[in-house]
Parts: sequence; structure tokens; C-alpha cells
Amino acid sequence: MKIEQNNIQEVNSKTLKSHNEQFDFLSNSLTSKGLNVKDLVKKLQDFQVAVPSWALGAGGTRFGRFSFYGEPSSLEQKIQDIGVIHSLTQTAGAVSLHIPWDIPSDYNAIKDIASGLNIKFDAVNSNTFQDQKNAKESYKYGSLSNINKAVRDQAIQHNLDVINIGDKLGSKSLTVWLADGSCFPGQNNFQTALQNTENSLKEIYKGLPNDWSMLIEYKPYEPNFYSTVIQDWGTSFMLANACGDKAYTLVDLGHHLPNSNIEQIVSILMLKGKLGGFHFNDSKYGDDDLTVGSIKPYALFLIFNELVYGIQNNPQNPDLAWMIDASHNVKDPLEDLIQSLEAIQEAYAKALLVDQNALKIAQQENDVVKCQEILQDAYRTDVRPLLAKARLDIGGALNPIQAYRDLGVRNQLIKERGKHTVSTGL
Amino acid sequence: MKIEQNNIQEVNSKTLKSHNEQFDFLSNSLTSKGLNVKDLVKKLQDFQVAVPSWALGAGGTRFGRFSFYGEPSSLEQKIQDIGVIHSLTQTAGAVSLHIPWDIPSDYNAIKDIASGLNIKFDAVNSNTFQDQKNAKESYKYGSLSNINKAVRDQAIQHNLDVINIGDKLGSKSLTVWLADGSCFPGQNNFQTALQNTENSLKEIYKGLPNDWSMLIEYKPYEPNFYSTVIQDWGTSFMLANACGDKAYTLVDLGHHLPNSNIEQIVSILMLKGKLGGFHFNDSKYGDDDLTVGSIKPYALFLIFNELVYGIQNNPQNPDLAWMIDASHNVKDPLEDLIQSLEAIQEAYAKALLVDQNALKIAQQENDVVKCQEILQDAYRTDVRPLLAKARLDIGGALNPIQAYRDLGVRNQLIKERGKHTVSTGL
Amino acid sequence: MKIEQNNIQEVNSKTLKSHNEQFDFLSNSLTSKGLNVKDLVKKLQDFQVAVPSWALGAGGTRFGRFSFYGEPSSLEQKIQDIGVIHSLTQTAGAVSLHIPWDIPSDYNAIKDIASGLNIKFDAVNSNTFQDQKNAKESYKYGSLSNINKAVRDQAIQHNLDVINIGDKLGSKSLTVWLADGSCFPGQNNFQTALQNTENSLKEIYKGLPNDWSMLIEYKPYEPNFYSTVIQDWGTSFMLANACGDKAYTLVDLGHHLPNSNIEQIVSILMLKGKLGGFHFNDSKYGDDDLTVGSIKPYALFLIFNELVYGIQNNPQNPDLAWMIDASHNVKDPLEDLIQSLEAIQEAYAKALLVDQNALKIAQQENDVVKCQEILQDAYRTDVRPLLAKARLDIGGALNPIQAYRDLGVRNQLIKERGKHTVSTGL
Amino acid sequence: MKIEQNNIQEVNSKTLKSHNEQFDFLSNSLTSKGLNVKDLVKKLQDFQVAVPSWALGAGGTRFGRFSFYGEPSSLEQKIQDIGVIHSLTQTAGAVSLHIPWDIPSDYNAIKDIASGLNIKFDAVNSNTFQDQKNAKESYKYGSLSNINKAVRDQAIQHNLDVINIGDKLGSKSLTVWLADGSCFPGQNNFQTALQNTENSLKEIYKGLPNDWSMLIEYKPYEPNFYSTVIQDWGTSFMLANACGDKAYTLVDLGHHLPNSNIEQIVSILMLKGKLGGFHFNDSKYGDDDLTVGSIKPYALFLIFNELVYGIQNNPQNPDLAWMIDASHNVKDPLEDLIQSLEAIQEAYAKALLVDQNALKIAQQENDVVKCQEILQDAYRTDVRPLLAKARLDIGGALNPIQAYRDLGVRNQLIKERGKHTVSTGL
Repeated sequence: MKIEQNNIQEVNSKTLKSHNEQFDFLSNSLTSKGLNVKDLVKKLQDFQVAVPSWALGAGGTRFGRFSFYGEPSSLEQKIQDIGVIHSLTQTAGAVSLHIPWDIPSDYNAIKDIASGLNIKFDAVNSNTFQDQKNAKESYKYGSLSNINKAVRDQAIQHNLDVINIGDKLGSKSLTVWLADGSCFPGQNNFQTALQNTENSLKEIYKGLPNDWSMLIEYKPYEPNFYSTVIQDWGTSFMLANACGDKAYTLVDLGHHLPNSNIEQIVSILMLKGKLGGFHFNDSKYGDDDLTVGSIKPYALFLIFNELVYGIQNNPQNPDLAWMIDASHNVKDPLEDLIQSLEAIQEAYAKALLVDQNALKIAQQENDVVKCQEILQDAYRTDVRPLLAKARLDIGGALNPIQAYRDLGVRNQLIKERGKHTVSTGL
Repeated sequence: MKIEQNNIQEVNSKTLKSHNEQFDFLSNSLTSKGLNVKDLVKKLQDFQVAVPSWALGAGGTRFGRFSFYGEPSSLEQKIQDIGVIHSLTQTAGAVSLHIPWDIPSDYNAIKDIASGLNIKFDAVNSNTFQDQKNAKESYKYGSLSNINKAVRDQAIQHNLDVINIGDKLGSKSLTVWLADGSCFPGQNNFQTALQNTENSLKEIYKGLPNDWSMLIEYKPYEPNFYSTVIQDWGTSFMLANACGDKAYTLVDLGHHLPNSNIEQIVSILMLKGKLGGFHFNDSKYGDDDLTVGSIKPYALFLIFNELVYGIQNNPQNPDLAWMIDASHNVKDPLEDLIQSLEAIQEAYAKALLVDQNALKIAQQENDVVKCQEILQDAYRTDVRPLLAKARLDIGGALNPIQAYRDLGVRNQLIKERGKHTVSTGL
Repeated sequence: MKIEQNNIQEVNSKTLKSHNEQFDFLSNSLTSKGLNVKDLVKKLQDFQVAVPSWALGAGGTRFGRFSFYGEPSSLEQKIQDIGVIHSLTQTAGAVSLHIPWDIPSDYNAIKDIASGLNIKFDAVNSNTFQDQKNAKESYKYGSLSNINKAVRDQAIQHNLDVINIGDKLGSKSLTVWLADGSCFPGQNNFQTALQNTENSLKEIYKGLPNDWSMLIEYKPYEPNFYSTVIQDWGTSFMLANACGDKAYTLVDLGHHLPNSNIEQIVSILMLKGKLGGFHFNDSKYGDDDLTVGSIKPYALFLIFNELVYGIQNNPQNPDLAWMIDASHNVKDPLEDLIQSLEAIQEAYAKALLVDQNALKIAQQENDVVKCQEILQDAYRTDVRPLLAKARLDIGGALNPIQAYRDLGVRNQLIKERGKHTVSTGL
Repeated sequence: MKIEQNNIQEVNSKTLKSHNEQFDFLSNSLTSKGLNVKDLVKKLQDFQVAVPSWALGAGGTRFGRFSFYGEPSSLEQKIQDIGVIHSLTQTAGAVSLHIPWDIPSDYNAIKDIASGLNIKFDAVNSNTFQDQKNAKESYKYGSLSNINKAVRDQAIQHNLDVINIGDKLGSKSLTVWLADGSCFPGQNNFQTALQNTENSLKEIYKGLPNDWSMLIEYKPYEPNFYSTVIQDWGTSFMLANACGDKAYTLVDLGHHLPNSNIEQIVSILMLKGKLGGFHFNDSKYGDDDLTVGSIKPYALFLIFNELVYGIQNNPQNPDLAWMIDASHNVKDPLEDLIQSLEAIQEAYAKALLVDQNALKIAQQENDVVKCQEILQDAYRTDVRPLLAKARLDIGGALNPIQAYRDLGVRNQLIKERGKHTVSTGL
């Protein structure tokens, strides 16, 4: 399944006139406020988000999983799915592999498929939260933090193997999400677990190629329900500092305690040059892994406001690895991802509209009302014509969800793959 | 201080042309989607929100209060302040009195002032969470729930007095917010406290005029930090049912535990015909009493989506008493209220845009992606020209905050009242 | 595997002398405070808690599951496991079946096994949160609340089937946990979903034998992450009232928003005669399903304080169905259950020590310090000798965990069943 | 008001016999487990907790304050109140002054009073969250983080003044609690606010005497309700590292987001040698400032378990400054403090009972059940006789609350001071 350019153009042609009117009106309005619309469009086109290889099938909870028809059953098919999304949105130009679920059998073949779809290999992800068949040691009581050196060594070696796989594909970063922790008070010695983790990460860091970075994710709870070794940004930051210049903190939007101010965390990390990557999703209760922007779109905008500020003002911080990390329990995974990509671009576009100079002045004058007005003015603007324009100019769909449906993509996938395929992943 | 029509028109004239262009473009766009713009404008104009008499001065926390210049120091001045806001926004046509902070000394005079400013008297609010000078009994350990009958009787009588005061002014409802509860396990017998409360409310209910309603507010914590007698909607609903047909539940947006789904509560109460009133504000952590829409505007939209649905589909539910209940710690209170009113109107307007028929069909087909698209389409629309139009046509300001500043209102108030006046309230 | 009385006695004999000293000292101390120790022991012996049939194997999370050796692979073996626990603790005299995971193939045989181990059949549990093989309709978008009548009918019929199965075994109640809800705003119409649920529950209620009760569980989130139809006690209570006298609310300790005051909910429900059942577990973050008493033992004591008060003062409330609902991710399930039972008995015993008369007086005098002292005096008492005595006198182990290990139960189970058996359940 | 030794002895004599029996029984039991009871008693006696000078009057909330009779109206009287508590508990041998509320007018006189009551001067606390009369600059928009240099300079100078005052009294540490933050998105530039704070703290640090330490407190929200500059341990730790060796993090138990694992934070800070001080209280919802141990006593025990471990294993961490930071809204402040001190000693005593060697072995074997049993065995022990013994031997009361009442302390204070005195503080 591959979407052809002319098919997209055909779908676009139905709403092109209306789009042009809306874009022109918005463009004039923004220009009159002093904004460079051409530059805005360019920035949106340059913003590419990776799709993880485990997010193309139906997701589930501990209570079960309802499958979806036409799921990809091989890495090739997964990359083709991303190709579909990328054709329509022009925003999903990368895949983030999960090892061992998606080890390529033929590296060159996979690289050819990906490059044919303009898809790059972003961060690779290790898995030490599940036992693999025939593994010698079990991660039931932890991996990099395990009290038992043999288990730690196995987990370290797995991460080194993941780096090796990524290296062959052109990846430049390793994401370490560590589920390690404890379910009951007393189960772990906090200090020992942290020290073991630090030492293990340093071992992995030693194996990192010079042009790679290591991204250390944090999460307060789940799958462990009393403590998690890397439970917050403070611990991740401390570990990244201990490892070295190529180690960074990775922020996943769902990995925070209730009411956390995530945008502040983002801002501090960029100031310190230690924000390395970002996992997008949305949530109401915990790590709900919902579609980006479906629950708290204003919070997403505030986060992007800090990201835009940091990109402009913090040269000490590297380019970030952007990725969606959502679970698709009740939606077609591809439609869900398209909605997430739209929400990300929307938040980014609105953040780009913020009048940073006026905001700075209002802040200096403690004009709190004005500060709010400035942010809300940007947020309340309907930027959809801008997003559509950015896609249109480089071959994407004016309305990706509509195009996906008009082109009958899912039915085509079911025809090709059958109904009851099952994708690897959670 | 009173704002004259011609002053507002003068300010409006500067941006009128630009407004007309924006409104026309939006109007065409909405009309082409099948919406009746005239009807939308009318609904926005009819939507009036009460301002509480305690919210016109600076607010504070237990750690202190930073005063604001030119605060109103009498009920007359408070109503004049609301008059200012109402002139500019045409949305604040009511005042909600707090007793005993704002007992009129001359009822006719106050009524004249209010009617001269087109301001009605909305719900009256009793206060049994503080001791009044020379009060015989103390509310330290509760009021309507107190273990001591004499205290309960005093609190009941106070509520009856408040009804009496409201009756003289034309109010038609009494809001009971009960701070009663306990700070430590064991302090209260939960069952006794609830039964005392139910009996006290029934006594107050007996004194309610036939055309009045009683609104029972709930709140999980603060100022009591272990338990609150009316801690959630379930308890309020139970008590309202026990009192009778004229008793309803009142929802304050800040009075919920973390992660509550407030829109669902709103929806259930309307289905059962028991939603009587609404206190608008916003919050990130607890009952933060921030400007409406400043933290979670999408949640506000979702709540309005239920309100609009209920107003259309639940004839069993009465008209609601709308009020802002925010605290102005770092902003000019009048500007803060204007921002709140704008956010309320924005959420209401967007909710009115939701295509209810399409949503119903998508729900019946379990097309979750489509359901989300429908809500987001409404929410992403920039409705500000619609709000401006609604104000403009009945004499309000195109941009109320800007007009407030251009007209130098605060300076005028300081000139008239002096800097160091202090308003009654928290 | 069955534990013989003489084996337990042999293990007990090692610490019997020390136990007797400790019990005598505690007994004297309690007697001098006016407590009837014999009566306390009797009450502890009478307190029996059901073990659910799905909790005898290893639990897991959406990220995976680490299996445990010697898991029961049939209903017979599950009941034998409960028999082991009951022999040692004398507290686990009931099983709560989950249908369809544990439908008996031979009812008489199962009843014989259970009665031979002194195990009764407590509430039966239906499952409409997962699709069963060959089921005609899918619960992906809800069951009792589903927009589609055919799905609702299938779910209703399943519940009626479960009642029928329970009836053959001697069960007297049906527990309905409804996972129904939505993952995204707009997906469900809240009012329709609630009305469908009410109607479906009424249909099930019609099929309830006269001497049965229906227990309606509530839960704020998971597996749905935006809304849940029966999200709190208020909704469950409303539905129970709508169904009739035999319908009650069931409280699961993990099914609350952060910071909820659960003991207050328990207290209100008992006052209203509507608390029907209880699921014990503990949690730090959400529905973590940890060992009872492992995280917040004082909260558990406060809950038992309300239960003891209600049992003594609320004849309007029925006897409760007690059950443990925990997941065993990192512990031997049988040891985990023994720890839970111990924590339940501990909290119950301490609640029985509370001097209710003194507390009532202190409450009447608003002597908050004294109220706290009374509760803390009970809670700080080391009641373990009392628990041991209660077990000892009816054939249980002085220290059940120790006895379980001394008797080599797990090894025996592995020998009998093999290592890699897998239990049905989550 | 001063309590004489013989008065205490007289009260003790009534329950001495019973105490001796209980202590002997417990002592034998602990000794048989290999514990050194003499050493335990000594450790309890050595553990002294400071009482802050603002916690001796009634506390309140933003909704008001109910006063208490006989409140101290001068620093002298406050220290006398601490003297009363210390006489009875032998645990409150220090006062922590709040400046400017409690600046001594005569240093030598105050020092004499304090030393006469065996009370030391612990950490001094600065206040930049309120404006002082005649202050040139206002802290409405922040102090050490303020965008305005003049405000920052005033706040820095205030802290230097506080050091100077403390130095004259023998204090050795300065506690900086910074309320700075923002109420609305956009109000502050997070990066600028943090950098200003870091620079200001460094200025204060320069003025720190060599043998002093600076304790940096963190808090997620209140009085600011959108963001707080030093919002979590990670930020405090980062700032302490930036300042130097004498700067540490201070943990206040109420200053965390819902569900935080505080004991893990404590453990990490001690591992890194950066835990400098501790504010004790308890809470259910936010910074509720309730009596220590009144809500979550097991969490307190787990925290002490980490403290005891750290004291034994982390020589890199300094001695901690212990303080109670609670608010007394419904209890006699002195009784409330006595209950807090008892809860602290109880948690400490139980933590000292933990069999650290056995725990280490169980952890190495991943025997999670055993780990829990070890902690619960310590926690379930009734250590009250141990606490009473520790007090008795150095002149304190067997039951301090009872003694306080038997000796009629509050009535005596009212007689001396009158009913309607008001204490400085919140």
C-alpha cells in the first residue's frame, strides 16, 4: 500500500478554492501583525515527528485488547503504514524502532523501503521491562538497577546490541526507558538501586558512538506501583549529568504526577542544555497514552511555547528527538496518529505566533493581564489554514483524515493483509 | 465612575473596519456550514453572568494579600464597578451579594443604582464559615452540621435572614456553601454531621419563598483538611433530593479532586433536573480561583458542550444561575473579570458551533475519530469576531480590556476613591 | 495439596509459649481498659473474607506479566489454593467466582471440594469488559451502556447466566463491575450511556432471585481514560436506588480519585443502607491492586472504624460481601493473600478497640485532641497476639506466612502441578 | 508560666507502676530480638525538634481564623510556651525564629530566657512573601526572582539581616522558603526567574558565616497557583549545588504533588549529601499543615526508615535541622505540638527497630514478602512504653498531653495573658 501523489492532489482539488480563501485571509491578518508567513510555513514543514514501530497496531490495557483489522504484521508493513501517514501529513518522516520487537532481518531491504518513503531512522528503543524467550536472566525484579550483577550485565548488553542495530540503520540516539522500581516498601534499597542504575547507564554510555546521544526517560509509576528508580526529571537530569555530555533527559507528557507543571520542566532542561527528546501523547489520569491534544490542548501549547523559546534562545540545547508515544485502543491507529500529528503542528504553529518581544516587555512591567492576552491571542487564532498550506506545498493533503478516508486506505490494507493480523507491541 | 456610550463608540471606531472584515469572513464561513449566525449572536447577548460582590477587590491567600489601588469600599461602589464591566462587555448584568459583607443600608437606593446600570440581583450567598462580631455562637466547629443545636439554629437563622435580604432586592435564589467538616480523623461523626446538615437545610428550605430556589454547593476540602460534610456532587444531590423540588446542586469548577471529569457531573445533574447554578473559575492544583479559561480552556469548552446540550434537551432542568467565583491576587480585579467573561463567552460560542446532529450519528456509529473531529472543529474555530459583534450590537466594546485601558478606568477610580481603600471580602 | 491440622499444630508449637505470654499481657491490658477480650476474639473469628478465583496466579500490567511457578490451572486447584490459605489463616472461608474464567464443569464436584475445605461461594462476578471467543457482539465500545441494543442484550444475558451459575453453587449476590466509558471527549453521550446502563441494570435486577443482592461497583478510570459510566459512589448509589431494595453499592479501595476520603463514603452509604460489598487492596497512585495495608494502613483502620460503627449502629444496612481484589505481580500469590488477610484482621481488630463512648463524648465537646488520641490509642496498640489467638483457637497458624514457608507449600504445589502452569485471569 | 519538675513527677507517679510493667515487657521482647534497648532510649532522648516561633498561636486559612485563648503576644511568651512543651516532652529543645515577626528587642534577655529553659536557637527563617510596613519595594511579583533588581536586592538584604540576627542568637542555619512564582501562564519567564533566583541565592550564600548552612525549601504551589520557581527537589538540589557546599535542600512533608514518594526523595538527597533540613507536618490534600502523623503515619515511618538508614550509612550528609511546621486551626497549639512530637518520636523509634541486616538479605534475595514483613514487624510494634521511658529518665512526662491537662497549663496561660491576645504569624 502506497499513496500516490496524484491521488492526494485529486482529493485536495475538492477543497482547494475554499482553502485558498481561508489561507489568504489568515495570511493577511498575520502579516498585518508583523509576522512572516512564509517563514512560519517553512518551520512547520521542517518539523518532523517520529512514529514508533509499536504504535501501528491496536493498543490495550491490562484488562485486555480489542484488535483492529489490517494491522501490520512485519517491520516492512509498519514502515509502509508510516509511509501512508507521511504522504498525507508530510510530518511523519521518521520511525523509531523498538528492539527486540522490530529487529530487521535484512538491513539493506529495510533501509531501501524507508528511504523510498522518505522515512529516517530516529532514536532506537531498548526493552528491559519484559523477559524475552530463552533469556538467561529475568527482569522481574529490575534490569539496569537489579541487585544481581548478571541481570544488570544482560540488560547493559541488550542496550549495546540496540545501539549496534540502530547504527546499521542510521539512527543517532538511544532512548532508555527504565521500568525498574518496586511494588512495595522495603522491596528495594533506593540508594543501591540508583547507584546500580547510574553504573549501568555509564557502561551503556561507553558504548555510544561519538555522534550519538543517550536519552534517559523518567516516569513516576507503572508498571511498578510503589517506587520507580528514575521517577522524575530531577533524577534523570542527575543521571544524565553523571554520564556525560551526550546524555540527556527525555520528557514523555504522560509521565508526571497529577497537576505537574510540565512546561516549567521543559524550560529548565533547555536552560541547562539537557533536554534531548520528547514523547507526545495526552492524558487525563496517568500515562493514558491518548491522542495528542485530545484532552489538554492549551497545556500542549504552553509546552510548545517553551520549546519555541528554547530553540530560539538556548543554543546550549541540542536538536530534539520528537516522537509520538500513544496507544490506540479504540481508534484506527493510523487515523489516531494523523490526529496527533495535526495537534502537534497546531500547537507548534500557535506557539510560533506568540509575540515574544511584547511578552518580554509585559513581563518586565508585571502586566500579568497583558501577558495572558498575548498568549491567548496566539492560542485563539485558528491556524488550520496555515497547517494545510504547509502540507499542500510539499505534496500533502489539505485534510489528512478526510483524504485517508476518501482514499479508502484501511480497506485497502485489510484487503492486502487480511483482518486478523496482529502487530507486535504492547 | 460610569462609562458613557459615546466613549465606548469612540474607542470602537478605531478597529471597527477590521472587525467588520473579520466578522464577515467568519459569518460566511459559519453560514456555509449551515449555522444561523444571527441566532448565535442573540444567544451570546442573552447569556448574562453574575459578578459576586466580594470579587471587586484584591484577593489573597493565607500567606497574605497585596492590595490594589482604587478598590470599592462600599456596596454602591461595588455595583458601580460591575456597571463598568457590564458597559464594556454587556455580559455582566447581575450582582450576587454576600451577606453579611454587603448588606444594603438603603434598599431602595441600592436598587436604583443597580437598575440604572441594568444590573439585576442574582443569588444571595450566606456566610457561616466565619464568626461575625458579637455573634453569640462560633462556627469554629461547624455551622449547619454543628453538634450543638444552638449553633445550628444561629446558622439556620442567618440563612433565613439572607433570604429576607435577597427578597427585598429581587433575588430568586440562595446559595449555600458549607465549609463545615473536620481537620482530623475522629473529630466528627460523619453520619451525625450529615444528618444535622440535612435537617438544617430542610429548615432553611421551609423559609424559601415559592418562586425561589436553594443552591447547594459542594467542595472536597478547604478550609477543612480532613473531611467536608458536602464533599461531592453525590452528597449535594442527595441533600437536594431530601429538601425538595426547589433545591438544586451548584457546581463550582474549582471544587473537585484532581482529574475529576466535571463535564460528566454536569451532564448527569441536568439529566436528573438538579443542576441549579454554576461558579466559574479555573485552577491547576485545587480551588485556585484563577481567571476563567486561563488554565484549562478545552475542559471549559467540554463543560459548555454539556450545558448547551442540556439546555436544548433537558426541559426538566431549570435555568441556571451563572456566576464568576474567582480571586484576583495579582491582576486588576476588573480586568480579571473582563478576561473571565470573555473566556466564558468564548467557550459558550464554541459549544454552540458543535454540530449536534453529526455528533449523534458519529456516536451511534462508534466513529470515535469523527466524534473528536466534530468537537475539535468547533473548538479550533476563532470565535472572537462573533463575541465582538454580539457586544457591539448592544453597546459594548469590541475589545473590552483595550477599551478599559484606553478609557483610563482604573486611574479614574483611584482619583475618585483614593489608593488605599480596602474592599470587604476574603 | 491440603494442609493437615497436625502439621499446623507442629509449627505452632515452636512459638506457642511466647505467644501465650504476649497474648496474656495484651489481654490483661485490654481487659483493664474495659474491653471484653473473648468477644473480640470471637468477632475476629467470624470475619471471613472471600478470595476471588482470578487472584491465585501471577498478575500483570499492560507492559507484561512475569509468571509464577505452580499456578493453579483449573478451578479445582484454585479452590485448593484457597483451602491452603484458609487452613492457615482461618479467615478465607469463601471464593468469589469470575465468569467466564471459572465456570464449573461439574457443579457437584466443585461444591464437594469447596465444602470439604469449609469454603463458601460468595458473590459471583460477570465480565463484560473482554470479548469471549465466538461471541456475537463485541464490548469494544461498551456493554450494558452500549449504543447498540444487541450488545446490551448480550451483556444483560451474560449477567443473567452468571446469576444462574452462582445460584447452582449457593452464591447470594452478583457483582457488576462495568468498565464501560470512553477514551475521548465526544465519544459517548453521557446521558444516553447512563440511561442505557440504568435500563440494562434493571433488566438484570429482574432476574435476581429474591434472596440475592446486586452489587454495583464504581471506578473513575481504567480501562477507559476519559470517562467511565459508573465513575463514583454517587452514580452507583443513584443506580442502586433506581433498581430497588436488593441493589447496593460496592466499594473497591483502589477505585477513587487522588486524595478521596473513602471512609466518609463508606459511612454515608451505611447510613443510607446501601453499602453492599467491599473489595480490599491498597494503592499509591491508582488502581494499583497492591497487598491490603501495604501502603496506607491507617486509612484502612479509619475505614474499618466506620464499618464497625455502621455494623453496630446501622441495622438498615445489610451484611457486607467482603473480598480481596489484589494483583500479585512480584509476590507468591498465596503469601500475598495471607499478608492481605492479616492486614484486614489487624485493621478490624484495632477498630474494635476504639472506645466509641469516649469518642462520642469528645466529639460532643469538640475536644479534637481527645478524639485523635482515642483513635490513635486503638491504632497504636499491637494487636498481633489477638489475631494469633483467634486463629489458634480454631485450628489456624500462629504465624501463617511462617507456617506456609515451614510447610514448604509452594514447593509442594510445583511438584504437583509443574512450573509452567498458567492460571486464567488478567 | 513554667512547669516545675516536681509537678511532672507528681503527675507521673499515678501511672508509673503500669508504665514500668509495660516497659519491662516491651524491653524484654525487644532484647530477645537482639535490640539494645538502652541505646534506643538514648537515641530517642537525643532527638530534638525545633518549634517555629509562628506556630504557638492559632492558625487559619484564607477563609478566616478562629482565635485561641491565651496566645503568646511576645517572643518571650512564645519561648515560654516552647519551654512548657519541652518540659513535658523533653523533645522540643529548640526554637526556629521567623523574621521579621520575631526580632528580639533585647538579645541577651532572650538568650537568657531560652537557655534557662534549655532551648537552643535553630535555623532562622526569612520572609519575602509578604510586604512589611514601610518597605520600599513590594514582593507582589516575587522577591529573589523578581524581574526588578531593586526588589531582588531588598530581598537579598533581608536575608543577610536575618543571618545577622540569627548569628547573635547562636543559630547556625538559614532557611529560605521562596513563595515566588506566577499565577498565570506567561506571567513569568521561567528561565529568567530561575536565573535571578540562583544569582540572588549566591549573593546570600556569600554572606553566610563559615559554620552556617543555607537550607533551600521547595514547594509545588501556593501561594502561587500556576508555577513556583523552586517547585521540586530537583530544582532545589540544582540550586544548592550551584551555591556550594554549605547549601542544602530542605524537605517539608506537605510540599509535594499528590502521590509523591517522599521517602525516595529523602533517600536520594542523603546519598548525595544534600539533605539539610526537615519540616514535619501531615496532609491529605495539599500543604494542609496538619498534626504530624495524623493522616499518614506509615508514610512517616517509611521516611524515618530512610532517615535512619542515611544517618547510619551516609557520612557525606550533615546533621539535619528538624522542625515542626504545622498550623493549629482547631486545636490548642501546645497540645497539637505535643501530639506532633509524639508522632515523630514514634516513627523514629519504629524505624530504629527495623532489622537492617535482615532487610538487606531479603532485598538481595528479592524476597519481597519478607522485606514487607520486616518493615511491618517494626511498624506494628507498640513503642509507646519506649517513648515514655525516654522522657521519664530525663524529667519529662509519661503522658505529656495528660500532664498538660492535669497541670491546667492553658488555664494558667489565660490567667496570665488574658483571652484575647493575638500571636504574630499567619
